[in-house]
Amino acid sequence: MNKKSLHIVKIGGNILDNPEALEKFIEDFSLLQGNKILVHGGGKAATELSAQLGITTKMVDGRRITDAASLDVVVMVYAGLINKKLVASLQTRTCKAIGLCGADSNLMRSTLRQHSHIDYGFVGDLSPDGVNTTALAQLLLDNLIPVIAPITYDGKGQLLNTNADTIASCLAAAMSFLFDVKLLYCFEKRGVLKEIDNEHSVIPLLTERDYMNLKAETIISKGMLPKLDNAFRALHAGVQQVWVGHAADLNTHLNAKSNAGTSLLI
Amino acid sequence: MNKKSLHIVKIGGNILDNPEALEKFIEDFSLLQGNKILVHGGGKAATELSAQLGITTKMVDGRRITDAASLDVVVMVYAGLINKKLVASLQTRTCKAIGLCGADSNLMRSTLRQHSHIDYGFVGDLSPDGVNTTALAQLLLDNLIPVIAPITYDGKGQLLNTNADTIASCLAAAMSFLFDVKLLYCFEKRGVLKEIDNEHSVIPLLTERDYMNLKAETIISKGMLPKLDNAFRALHAGVQQVWVGHAADLNTHLNAKSNAGTSLLI
Repeated sequence: MNKKSLHIVKIGGNILDNPEALEKFIEDFSLLQGNKILVHGGGKAATELSAQLGITTKMVDGRRITDAASLDVVVMVYAGLINKKLVASLQTRTCKAIGLCGADSNLMRSTLRQHSHIDYGFVGDLSPDGVNTTALAQLLLDNLIPVIAPITYDGKGQLLNTNADTIASCLAAAMSFLFDVKLLYCFEKRGVLKEIDNEHSVIPLLTERDYMNLKAETIISKGMLPKLDNAFRALHAGVQQVWVGHAADLNTHLNAKSNAGTSLLI
Repeated sequence: MNKKSLHIVKIGGNILDNPEALEKFIEDFSLLQGNKILVHGGGKAATELSAQLGITTKMVDGRRITDAASLDVVVMVYAGLINKKLVASLQTRTCKAIGLCGADSNLMRSTLRQHSHIDYGFVGDLSPDGVNTTALAQLLLDNLIPVIAPITYDGKGQLLNTNADTIASCLAAAMSFLFDVKLLYCFEKRGVLKEIDNEHSVIPLLTERDYMNLKAETIISKGMLPKLDNAFRALHAGVQQVWVGHAADLNTHLNAKSNAGTSLLI
């Protein structure tokens, strides 16, 4: 039986922080036909609110150390402010958006991150097994468009901060058993770049073998590694296609009107 | 055709602010069988966060004046922190909770409050017509338990702060076309009191005629008026039963094991 198609779009913090880019993205996302899920990151708002509240933001390897006060901040900003503003805005475009975090409808159960010498605090690691595909499929069947904040929970009442790239990848992997999934990472760069500061150096097609080589040669930069590791993992798990590109290129890419961005291949 | 029953429970801020009372309430609510919706208020958290951020909380007649900064605070606290913590906690009791505000699934469209000489700011007035009963019924059909934050929107992208008692009443009135609705206002008092400081002066059965008299004699206190006005409006709109009582008495009342609290009658 042919599976129905499902687009899972991840939108990064830099786009969320730019009102014009966000407006265009929302317009483009709303035009996307069929089943779709939007996963959003955090942007600067959580760090700004933390600063206003006198909470020091500690980062280790680009990951936020989430103590109890910081957890409250990210829950408020990600699952509250950003999520509900996105939903309200999508609704104006007849997009039947429904804003959710991992606790809602038991959608995403993660496990508290264990690390030998770093205490990440209330950070949850998600795997595709933690995704409630039945509940998510039911919402899609109801013609709703889940808008997912990067907050999961441990199934025992504790909310946890979780990387949005990982969430997008795990949702894609898990849902690929039920749908033909296309995973699209939208951010502020034109794709995976060969030269970090040169927007004209986009790699149009990145095979896993090439990725391994570029990684070994440290040509692909640090920030891209978790995103791409997640993305290749999703392809191995059965996701049909993964694309990484600028939010503004989403629609031309999907309508095959340009070869902007980077498509991944295993 | 017999309609199915639906319980709509409103939980007030004073219970949310008391961890032990909240724990018991969550346990009791989770034991309630059949279709149910939880509507929650705000509690002190929004005022506390505003104070920490140096935002002055202005109240007129017990209503918060909601400027842009205050709106962000209530969206974060109500639709983020309180809503998601409630959902995570309910999920541990196999309660398939899903946390939502009025923008989600276009559930509650309100209109910006217009007033001749007070600018309430981003405050939305809801009527039963603004409730998307189809979307709400679909969620109930999926065996989900909506947990509703007191944030609505204007259908044009703007989130609005809305009184939780009004939301509970409007949801009850609107849903009474599809369900036999019982509306339960749970708060920190034992019911509608004849003497404001005497917990033993509960009025077990309050008719609308008695209410009008007690109101005229200013025996029923100011804070109760909007709640009771809303409640009687809900009865007129077709809601089967309205009960006002202490959160701790919810289950004994529903199991007809006590006559705690106040039942309203038109």
